[in-house]
Amino acid sequence: MNNKFKDFYSLNMKETKQKIKESVSDENFILQTINYIGELDRIFNILMKRLREWYELYNPEFSRRVQDHAKFVELILEGNDEKENDSMGADIDKKDLKEIKDIALRAKDIFSERKSKEEYLEKLMKEVCPNLTAVAGVTIGAKLISLAGDLKRLMLFPSSTVQLLGAEKALFRHMKTGARSPKHGIIHEHPLVASAKDKGKAARAVADKISLAVKVDYFKGEFIGGKLRKELEERLK
Amino acid sequence: MNNKFKDFYSLNMKETKQKIKESVSDENFILQTINYIGELDRIFNILMKRLREWYELYNPEFSRRVQDHAKFVELILEGNDEKENDSMGADIDKKDLKEIKDIALRAKDIFSERKSKEEYLEKLMKEVCPNLTAVAGVTIGAKLISLAGDLKRLMLFPSSTVQLLGAEKALFRHMKTGARSPKHGIIHEHPLVASAKDKGKAARAVADKISLAVKVDYFKGEFIGGKLRKELEERLK
Repeated sequence: MNNKFKDFYSLNMKETKQKIKESVSDENFILQTINYIGELDRIFNILMKRLREWYELYNPEFSRRVQDHAKFVELILEGNDEKENDSMGADIDKKDLKEIKDIALRAKDIFSERKSKEEYLEKLMKEVCPNLTAVAGVTIGAKLISLAGDLKRLMLFPSSTVQLLGAEKALFRHMKTGARSPKHGIIHEHPLVASAKDKGKAARAVADKISLAVKVDYFKGEFIGGKLRKELEERLK
Repeated sequence: MNNKFKDFYSLNMKETKQKIKESVSDENFILQTINYIGELDRIFNILMKRLREWYELYNPEFSRRVQDHAKFVELILEGNDEKENDSMGADIDKKDLKEIKDIALRAKDIFSERKSKEEYLEKLMKEVCPNLTAVAGVTIGAKLISLAGDLKRLMLFPSSTVQLLGAEKALFRHMKTGARSPKHGIIHEHPLVASAKDKGKAARAVADKISLAVKVDYFKGEFIGGKLRKELEERLK
């Protein structure tokens, strides 16, 4: 290589690296966090299924009585899991029991990691897209960004697309087989949609406001999220 | 209900509960543990995938350089993950970095739980079926019991079935479509099969000895596992 080309090459390389470096933003953290939270849920479920199956060899009546996973784990770890006198569960050595309770420890830890990541996500969302967060809520807002790919793409979608994000499967089924068209995607989890009688209408209204909120966020407009959310609640009352 | 029936009912109930209670054995713990270990592997992989993807926003060169998951986690947690000067990774705040390192903490914990459960499994296997363990090894032995359902069913299988346990998919494909018949199931992981030139012959020999070992274990015979293993090694030399 001659010197000129070498200079050009190394300068080009340096600039590209710099650009990659600068392309990382808080939005990336939002995507990582919301996906990680979904994975933590999966992990928690794997651990709880194993914990209950194994524990029920020892004290099935107690496991059936305490349905709530987090409470079940808490009570076991505190040792507040007395056996009934005529329990069907086997007598199990303390050291074998310890092996079972090890799973409860892990489940508890994963549960607390989830809580901490939820708080982190809330902080990120309020910084990056306060309006979207106010209208859609932290989790749905983050899932929408994740489904769209990034905030910019979400901003460019018409609100009818926003309404159906997360319902791609049902949408393609509709297009292919003529099955009923979906009325809402991930936003069916929104409390104002979930509690509405006419869910199609509610989903449309929520998607409209989300669409607007995302545009304000993307162009770094003022915070009008509180106002938007109130209007929405009025409309869907 | 008249009194006689009531007495009969409660006695019957009591006896049934007692029988259920007594049906739990160390074999159940083996099944729980080997299945749990498989789940811990899945969890570890989920965590590592997320950790690497997220961490690579910050220091991709380091992540690419350290391929071994356990070592990667160790170095990150020790803070021995220096960045190259011209790294493509973004500058990330300490508090955002902490959120990433939280994942490494979990991965490390799951890894150590796996180790501890492997040791527990070894202890159980040596107690319940020392001969099988000596011939097949801890993990393969436990997987064979799990595939058969319990030790008794494994004992009743002919050795040609033992040879194919874990290859059911390939076997049914063979029966349905006439594809090549499988020569070995889970025992292809056995070191004496893995290193053999003629894997079919080795699998047959290993399955024969396993079949014998399980029978001795089931009927609580003497420990001849060491002898069986040695014979096998001689034969397959």
